[in-house]
Amino acid sequence: MTPEQPSTHTISCDPFPGSQKIYVKGNLHDIEVAMREISLTDTKLSSGNKEINAPVTVYDTSGPYTDPAIAIDVRKGLPRLRQSWITKRGDVEQLPEITSDYGKKRLYDTSLDHLRFEHIQKPLRAKAGSNVTQLHYAKKGIITPEMEYIAIRENQCIDYLKEVLNGQYETLAQQHAGHSFGANTPKGLITPEFVRQEVAAGRAVIPSNINHPESEPMIIGRNFLVKINANLGNSAVSSSIEEEVEKAVWACRWGADTIMDLSTGKNIHETREWIIRNSPVPIGTVPIYQALEKVGGRPEALTWEIFRDTIIEQAEQGVDYFTIHAGVLLRYIPLTAKRVTGIVSRGGSIMAKWCLAHHKENFLYTHFEELCEIMKQYDVSFSLGDGLRPGSIADANDAAQFAELETLGELTKIAWKHDVQVIIEGPGHVPMHLIKENMDKQLKECHEAPFYTLGPLTTDIAPGYDHITSAIGAAMIGWFGTAMLCYVTPKEHLGLPNKKDVKDGVIAYKIAAHAADLAKGHPGAQYRDNALSKARFEFRWEDQFNLSLDPDTAREFHDETLPADGAKVAHFCSMCGPKFCSMHITQEIRDFAEKNMVEKSEEFKQQGSELYL
Amino acid sequence: MTPEQPSTHTISCDPFPGSQKIYVKGNLHDIEVAMREISLTDTKLSSGNKEINAPVTVYDTSGPYTDPAIAIDVRKGLPRLRQSWITKRGDVEQLPEITSDYGKKRLYDTSLDHLRFEHIQKPLRAKAGSNVTQLHYAKKGIITPEMEYIAIRENQCIDYLKEVLNGQYETLAQQHAGHSFGANTPKGLITPEFVRQEVAAGRAVIPSNINHPESEPMIIGRNFLVKINANLGNSAVSSSIEEEVEKAVWACRWGADTIMDLSTGKNIHETREWIIRNSPVPIGTVPIYQALEKVGGRPEALTWEIFRDTIIEQAEQGVDYFTIHAGVLLRYIPLTAKRVTGIVSRGGSIMAKWCLAHHKENFLYTHFEELCEIMKQYDVSFSLGDGLRPGSIADANDAAQFAELETLGELTKIAWKHDVQVIIEGPGHVPMHLIKENMDKQLKECHEAPFYTLGPLTTDIAPGYDHITSAIGAAMIGWFGTAMLCYVTPKEHLGLPNKKDVKDGVIAYKIAAHAADLAKGHPGAQYRDNALSKARFEFRWEDQFNLSLDPDTAREFHDETLPADGAKVAHFCSMCGPKFCSMHITQEIRDFAEKNMVEKSEEFKQQGSELYL
Repeated sequence: MTPEQPSTHTISCDPFPGSQKIYVKGNLHDIEVAMREISLTDTKLSSGNKEINAPVTVYDTSGPYTDPAIAIDVRKGLPRLRQSWITKRGDVEQLPEITSDYGKKRLYDTSLDHLRFEHIQKPLRAKAGSNVTQLHYAKKGIITPEMEYIAIRENQCIDYLKEVLNGQYETLAQQHAGHSFGANTPKGLITPEFVRQEVAAGRAVIPSNINHPESEPMIIGRNFLVKINANLGNSAVSSSIEEEVEKAVWACRWGADTIMDLSTGKNIHETREWIIRNSPVPIGTVPIYQALEKVGGRPEALTWEIFRDTIIEQAEQGVDYFTIHAGVLLRYIPLTAKRVTGIVSRGGSIMAKWCLAHHKENFLYTHFEELCEIMKQYDVSFSLGDGLRPGSIADANDAAQFAELETLGELTKIAWKHDVQVIIEGPGHVPMHLIKENMDKQLKECHEAPFYTLGPLTTDIAPGYDHITSAIGAAMIGWFGTAMLCYVTPKEHLGLPNKKDVKDGVIAYKIAAHAADLAKGHPGAQYRDNALSKARFEFRWEDQFNLSLDPDTAREFHDETLPADGAKVAHFCSMCGPKFCSMHITQEIRDFAEKNMVEKSEEFKQQGSELYL
Repeated sequence: MTPEQPSTHTISCDPFPGSQKIYVKGNLHDIEVAMREISLTDTKLSSGNKEINAPVTVYDTSGPYTDPAIAIDVRKGLPRLRQSWITKRGDVEQLPEITSDYGKKRLYDTSLDHLRFEHIQKPLRAKAGSNVTQLHYAKKGIITPEMEYIAIRENQCIDYLKEVLNGQYETLAQQHAGHSFGANTPKGLITPEFVRQEVAAGRAVIPSNINHPESEPMIIGRNFLVKINANLGNSAVSSSIEEEVEKAVWACRWGADTIMDLSTGKNIHETREWIIRNSPVPIGTVPIYQALEKVGGRPEALTWEIFRDTIIEQAEQGVDYFTIHAGVLLRYIPLTAKRVTGIVSRGGSIMAKWCLAHHKENFLYTHFEELCEIMKQYDVSFSLGDGLRPGSIADANDAAQFAELETLGELTKIAWKHDVQVIIEGPGHVPMHLIKENMDKQLKECHEAPFYTLGPLTTDIAPGYDHITSAIGAAMIGWFGTAMLCYVTPKEHLGLPNKKDVKDGVIAYKIAAHAADLAKGHPGAQYRDNALSKARFEFRWEDQFNLSLDPDTAREFHDETLPADGAKVAHFCSMCGPKFCSMHITQEIRDFAEKNMVEKSEEFKQQGSELYL
């Protein structure tokens, strides 16, 4: 072990407080779906009796790291959960060696041995003539184990949903008339068949490269829970492999549904292998970054051949989705010249420079069908990049941005022709009043393919706090129908995120995503809010902490002013002190009202009147 | 000096980096309006020339503390800016001593001398038969110095506005058709007469107790910049006077437009004096908290007489607005019994308990006209409290909440009859899809009196991060028309905020308020965004930091990964490193495009064609 390789002891793998990992079995397939169950304490009633509070099950992205029963060894990677599902379909073959020339060069370079993952497997690829995408299966009417896994996973609070189906959800649905959520779901309950239908229609994607069997299936679509992505990756200026792996595990712990590895520094290839082998969530990349490394950082030196080799290299490592900036067309580039902030997408600016230098059309656009041919052999999904997204409030919703969006819609249809899954990337920097137009236009132009936005940031004036400027926009666009929100950390515009920044970004985006789920009327979403609020009202402090998105911080903040253990069962807190506690007073009001009601109803009874209640 | 008294050296009074305090003179009155001017560096053009970037003027709530020319001595208090404006009106008299019995008792208690502010002045009160409210003057057609101060202050970027008035603003206004902002303003420019009209109509208030002459005039109304309030105050469990004064100054430094002193612990009276004498912004309180202290914390022991003495005590100290929970009616209390979180407003629960204990109507409601009689003698504004606001997502927009809102509308009309200024408090915890209903209903029921909301929090599941859960709701409701947003700190629900929490809460709310101003189409708002984005794009790092809401944090975050001084003029940053810099590439695109354009236009010229541009 050199210090450059990750070691297990630096990886976060404690279970969450008051929680246990549970596994729910499938019906159609031999699968076990991981969830987190939070145990609650009893409510002490003023009568002296107790009320039992049922445990709360929540969607869990943390993978095996939070299950003490599973031994974690980052040098070996995670268990290969989907391996048998993939091979049993009979449509893949194991290649004798990797296909990419560059990949081979790295693999056989002994000077890299000290930082190479030790257990690299030979890649899988679709057999000749086969198409191994989830979209392909869905269109053929096949419900894959991945689809059933997702159906169970999305119905996190099964018991609550049953309760909800007895009438309650109808009310919710009526309240939220006009919003799209659940419009196609059988009263909000997610079934495996519903998952299949949404994938088949292109309204949802399941990023699931056959070479990333470690990932737990998840879905990105607006009729499901809103997902979030966390960007990681080293640059030429900072960070090590170890840091990046721990950041990935850390991001998943706090709720990242996918990870994008945006490394631009040294050893991109080797770093990526470590991350994928240890990631329980799908991994995305922007392959043009690595392609650019290969040509010494000169965009004009890029070629289709180098790019092609790069995506094969990455597909065979197991990358689940690629950001491809195929919509940056030559004719759109002049539309950005008068912007306040020009082109801020790295991929977009690289392609724009290539187009201008050669005065040719973007090779990602001209070779798009060849890309599809490659991606369907591994089930890599397209994340069609918005290379011309606005980088400031001033540039929001301009001609360049919307022209590119129309082209992404055109490319979506081509990808679908090949049964390749597609999501569409969106902005960026957009003031609140212009957000909805983005969503509406995306749905229309891109035929309801899932939208995946970066924020958007609703103002430019708060560097250092862009997790907040953007959580506002993210919550809103999530409500309007965006399927996945790409997080923004406090370091955005200023530097690379450290572990604290990653957590701050993830939590801000879990908040945005959950707020969106509530606003969309997701039938299961409010269960956790209600359980936490009940715990809060009843001064069940530990339950309040454990039900929260970040139990560690909630507990730490509480203990800053009232650290004594006794304070966690006290019926007051440091905000008001014992005498002024409104929750305490309300309980008295309830008791008073109850007593009064009983007295009054006794009175009425004695008067021979009807029961007063 | 005892350790319990504040000392000047602990008070934050540095100027902002790259900034100077400027004072703009009035036309109608002999006034000087404080603003902050941020100097910018030149842009280095690729031609070798320089482009001069004009300084940016921003609204400044920090008061004299950021002006190095003014000596700060917290033991003496701030300069009494409005003193002569108030006395010149000829409608006030100085009382021989304070009126409140409790106040006298505290004043003459020598055991409190060690923590008493040394320079307490005798209070002012309206002469018999006079009404000294800004609403009263406004209705009479008088433009006060306060109104002119506000008009100048709100037009922070005068030069930009002039530019904007040449057509640009028309476009903005069209973009935002359907929103109320500026509907009544002369093309968005705030005039003193416009301020008067908005106050006269009750659509805006100027909290300005005649006994708080230290405060710089500000306005709360939906046709002005969205304002934010920061809550402070000690409780029985923690904090000292010194901490509270510094927290108030600190909150103003980062952008608090008003401060609410919610102290519930010891020495409330003395703490308040220190805060008011040193506060450049209006101060609000919830007088029932102190009244409850006076009766040993037993709500049922409260009386109108004790409450009356308390508001006179506070009015004569200089409190600018009172939260009064006069809408918690006896008949509404049972509506809260089945809530998940009952009554969470402290004031609301105190009044509810009083009503139930006595089975009588709320004495704040039955004595409302007497309250008006007192408040108009000092120009204390009503902030009609929402004692029945929802404390959880589950309880949002319920019958109890909306019943109280209707009563607040009724009380607004009574207050206006007395020319007493009114704002209306709002929730609380509300999921995104139910926020707009709050705003619409408030405008309708409360006759367009300004709305002042606490958040709202858009989910309950993130204690420790409620500045974020609520900034989302605050930004949205601010866009919809809320005039002032009461901040929520990360410690909400967990403990009392420390200085870091206060700053985090204030910055989150400055973001929300500014995002709302952008979305409302405030003509001056986007100027700062544009200036910052231009600086960012041009790698003018220092300008980017100085234009941001929190220059210290922006600089610190940048320096974490690239601390060298050279990096602040480097044309790249740690996110991508020099080769991958999209902004760098865009500049190359611009240069390339420009060069190409020139070449092409030369070509065309030679061909005798028209100029190609």
